[in-house]
Amino acid sequence: MNIQKGPLLYEGKAKKIYQTNENDVLYVVYKDSATAFNGEKKAEINGKGILNNEISSLLFEMLKEKGIPTHFIQRISSREQLVKRVSIIPLEVVVRNVVAGSLSKRLGLKEGIEIKKPIIEYYYKNDDLGDPFINQAHIELLEIATKEQLAKMEEIALKVNDILTKYFAEREVRLIDFKLEFGVAEDGTILLADEISPDTCRLWDAKTNEKLDKDVFRRDIGNLTDAYTEILKRLGGTVPCTK
Amino acid sequence: MNIQKGPLLYEGKAKKIYQTNENDVLYVVYKDSATAFNGEKKAEINGKGILNNEISSLLFEMLKEKGIPTHFIQRISSREQLVKRVSIIPLEVVVRNVVAGSLSKRLGLKEGIEIKKPIIEYYYKNDDLGDPFINQAHIELLEIATKEQLAKMEEIALKVNDILTKYFAEREVRLIDFKLEFGVAEDGTILLADEISPDTCRLWDAKTNEKLDKDVFRRDIGNLTDAYTEILKRLGGTVPCTK
Repeated sequence: MNIQKGPLLYEGKAKKIYQTNENDVLYVVYKDSATAFNGEKKAEINGKGILNNEISSLLFEMLKEKGIPTHFIQRISSREQLVKRVSIIPLEVVVRNVVAGSLSKRLGLKEGIEIKKPIIEYYYKNDDLGDPFINQAHIELLEIATKEQLAKMEEIALKVNDILTKYFAEREVRLIDFKLEFGVAEDGTILLADEISPDTCRLWDAKTNEKLDKDVFRRDIGNLTDAYTEILKRLGGTVPCTK
Repeated sequence: MNIQKGPLLYEGKAKKIYQTNENDVLYVVYKDSATAFNGEKKAEINGKGILNNEISSLLFEMLKEKGIPTHFIQRISSREQLVKRVSIIPLEVVVRNVVAGSLSKRLGLKEGIEIKKPIIEYYYKNDDLGDPFINQAHIELLEIATKEQLAKMEEIALKVNDILTKYFAEREVRLIDFKLEFGVAEDGTILLADEISPDTCRLWDAKTNEKLDKDVFRRDIGNLTDAYTEILKRLGGTVPCTK
């Protein structure tokens, strides 16, 4: 494939998306920006984009091999990857195995409580509304996705949870919760999209429960680069020189 | 039935519940307190308890006649009614026919948009947490209700919606949304409990869309007594002298 980067299509909080000379292929560039609380907290963290591109590429490769339909084509440089063009469904699909973060606050339960059957939550991707928590009836009302598409996303999300939980456990990491996004390809197929990284997962060290994810930034409890580097190491990835 | 009022069992924001000489019967007294925003806004409104007892008794009688299983036994005085003792399920079951209130804010939709298929929402009755909006998976995690109980509540809620929507429409009132609570009787039956009144329903005049419910208090847009009296009149109830 001889793919040339074209004009900027969209700039998000953590990534830039470019068109390419192929209509159904997009070019993703991972930025160094860290944001939290709907963009209220911001920082530039040198090398974060490189770490997340490495981690997300490794995980998407692995999920593809295990039969998960994804938008991922290939990593092409330290900050860049190619993905299939999809129409992003404006939903954050959150899967939870252990109580943490907003679930802990919402239900008044302590962080760390194991959840027997994984919990799925939907958030409406809408910055103006602060990405509100919604239910399936709201999704129908907003016509965000059909019932069939939602069932498919839920099925994929639970499969991804099974695969990732096992994969991380083998690397001494607990997968506490994570957020997925999905897109619809031109032929109507639902594909796993966006990224999977310590920006979008809660990952705790299996022995110490040390946080190895964006909570170190959200809560100012550690060094983001160290945490993300540790995850990349455990996944067997090549740790880039970011100094 | 010769029921004697016993000791106070529980005092809520709008009602007091007393034991009686019958173990499975409780005595409910409607108070004049109006509260909103989880108790942040408060007022005493002379006669409100009488109006709500009248309205709720009328509506529960009617629902009972139409086969809805309820805790309601009978109205016994202007402020008082007898109900079956149930163990209250700590859920607010909200049914919505038209976008209003928190749904409008959550989804960024204008108040007044018709909803084709009624939407059900669950809120966890917990003052400390501010009665948070939750989903079915949260209900399972908190063990608030079993799947079967939840299905039963949903079935009853939708039936009540059909009956009430028609009943109010015949009286030139639009049923915008409402909140139900349920309890479990000693034999395990799910019964509709609490009250149904302008405190727990959004009711708009069918012609003018004038608000005839607690929003006149929440939003300071009218006289609560006048609005509730208008509802009682339309239901054919006896308007009490509260002057």
